[in-house]
Amino acid sequence: MTGPRAHHQMSSHIAGLPELLGIELPVIQAPMAGVQDSALAIAVSNAGGLGSLPCAMLDLEALDAELAALRDGTARPFNVNFFCHTPPAFDSQREATWRRVLAPYYAGYGIDPAAAAAVPLRVPFCTEVAGVVERFKPAVVSFHFGLPSSGLMARVKSWGSKVLASATTVAEARWLEKHGVDVIVAQGLEAGGHRGMFLSDDLKTQVGTVALVPQIVDAVRLPVVAAGGIADARGVASAMSLGAVGVQVGTAYMLCREATTPVVHRTALKSGLAERTALTNLFSGRPARGIVNRLMQELGPMTEATPSFPLASAALAPLRSRAESSGSGDFSPLWCGQNATGCKEISAARLTQGLVGAR
Amino acid sequence: MTGPRAHHQMSSHIAGLPELLGIELPVIQAPMAGVQDSALAIAVSNAGGLGSLPCAMLDLEALDAELAALRDGTARPFNVNFFCHTPPAFDSQREATWRRVLAPYYAGYGIDPAAAAAVPLRVPFCTEVAGVVERFKPAVVSFHFGLPSSGLMARVKSWGSKVLASATTVAEARWLEKHGVDVIVAQGLEAGGHRGMFLSDDLKTQVGTVALVPQIVDAVRLPVVAAGGIADARGVASAMSLGAVGVQVGTAYMLCREATTPVVHRTALKSGLAERTALTNLFSGRPARGIVNRLMQELGPMTEATPSFPLASAALAPLRSRAESSGSGDFSPLWCGQNATGCKEISAARLTQGLVGAR
Repeated sequence: MTGPRAHHQMSSHIAGLPELLGIELPVIQAPMAGVQDSALAIAVSNAGGLGSLPCAMLDLEALDAELAALRDGTARPFNVNFFCHTPPAFDSQREATWRRVLAPYYAGYGIDPAAAAAVPLRVPFCTEVAGVVERFKPAVVSFHFGLPSSGLMARVKSWGSKVLASATTVAEARWLEKHGVDVIVAQGLEAGGHRGMFLSDDLKTQVGTVALVPQIVDAVRLPVVAAGGIADARGVASAMSLGAVGVQVGTAYMLCREATTPVVHRTALKSGLAERTALTNLFSGRPARGIVNRLMQELGPMTEATPSFPLASAALAPLRSRAESSGSGDFSPLWCGQNATGCKEISAARLTQGLVGAR
Repeated sequence: MTGPRAHHQMSSHIAGLPELLGIELPVIQAPMAGVQDSALAIAVSNAGGLGSLPCAMLDLEALDAELAALRDGTARPFNVNFFCHTPPAFDSQREATWRRVLAPYYAGYGIDPAAAAAVPLRVPFCTEVAGVVERFKPAVVSFHFGLPSSGLMARVKSWGSKVLASATTVAEARWLEKHGVDVIVAQGLEAGGHRGMFLSDDLKTQVGTVALVPQIVDAVRLPVVAAGGIADARGVASAMSLGAVGVQVGTAYMLCREATTPVVHRTALKSGLAERTALTNLFSGRPARGIVNRLMQELGPMTEATPSFPLASAALAPLRSRAESSGSGDFSPLWCGQNATGCKEISAARLTQGLVGAR
């Protein structure tokens, strides 16, 4: 029996998210590399939610500095988020293919096609990273694209950190439960940014939040947090009705004062363009949801021509920076979920309180 | 202002679905051609929901007989559903292309490739159809793929029928409001069967229920019914939290006694296969969500090789019938939404009551 009655019986054994994580409100601010740093996480944690620091693009020194800022900025729990991908070997042939695809754009801007571009750093969670994080023992550590090795998992849990991880299918949720996760983040396909998928790469069978959350709630004994398309108090109430113990909200925070969202990105979020998002691998090599822009329109949002994640961004970097400097987001990853109507130019504290209907 | 507060103020002016349509429960049984006839609709209407008769595949005589059965079977309101596509001209070149794609399967079954196959009837709503429906003046008429001509719309409304129609985007909802619809069915991409999309054919930007419903609620003054991924009482509660006045549920009814769901389809719905659905145009020429089966896997679910809707089904008919006769759904449209866990082999009345938490 997986009907509603069975569910309600089970969920009575599951503590609420605030109780589980030592926070006040069942709201996690989604970690969003590229549009925030510790300032947003501190503001959300101090408002009673769970602030999150995206660490995939931080080197060890920056990670240490950001963790120190978090520790100094809030006495409340916060979440430190990492990617768990396997870094690919550089493949000169795929890089050349990708640069051939982009060549007309380089020519358009008069950029030297041989322009050296630093590969933006995307470090998976590893021993060195764990060494830095260990000094801070954050209340929560979360992972995207699966989990680190069982040794690293054990190390994280030995600090007393609760471990959260993203599932985009019932199978991924079951796998995460078996591998020691404390809370599942059910990521519906409405969600902005990178899909957390790790057991399958089939985008065609990815599931919306309304369908995903109750199926995962029924399939695992762990508490489930809903993510994807949740933009306001209605969305939060809706997720709780589905059996989630809390929500993870990203897009709505992107116009907050404390976010570092670039101007071209803020402009797009405030425009009608934000009504059209799609999954694209153009910007990193892995599918992520963003506002449809010129590059996505002209190349198609998904292509086999990119190098493996995260190497696709290197060749795009000069184009992106040139375009952004003239106010254009044509080559920028404009990450955004399927409901940008929750974005407001207010403080992260007010936004957090508004999500739970507090005024 | 499109925040939750603005919404609550607006929604206080919107009557509930039961009040609007003269029913008891805010549940519409989704019209599902191929898996039901008037028997399911009668059972749902008598249970207090709104039963629906899918009419796209009925000729005038069958339509008359089914409407008479409905009138005799229930004194309560019911919904009569039509497609609003423009029937395509037969294109012998596209038909030949499609038959070339299918040729290996014909060979596999030893079926004569020239085998004549009757094109399954899919009649759009038209003057002749209106003439039959007028004799019954159903409480509700609903449309998929847009609306009929303004003349036909006026005729339907002159009978006192309420008009429902499907929107898959905010733009479609606004268009339907402008063209005289009484209630919008917001069809999230979780929904099984044909996507109602009619202003855009871009599947990549189709939106999940959690994101679609509140955005449409904010964009129009009409009441909004949520469809897509709603499988049980949790899903219904979740949709109401989003601002919907009711729900439209299809997949969950497909195992009911009163449904005519073919055996291969029932078997697939009860199996783990139902966890993997995708949008496919292979079976009709228009995108619809079904369980991933052999044909979808081997040809890819979306292709440009099919004739226009609804002509793709003709060449598939001999394969489907041969496969089904040996218990295989390899060539059948196994329509299914993204949450089949609500399917139960119980009466439609019990299923309807369970959706609103009644026991």
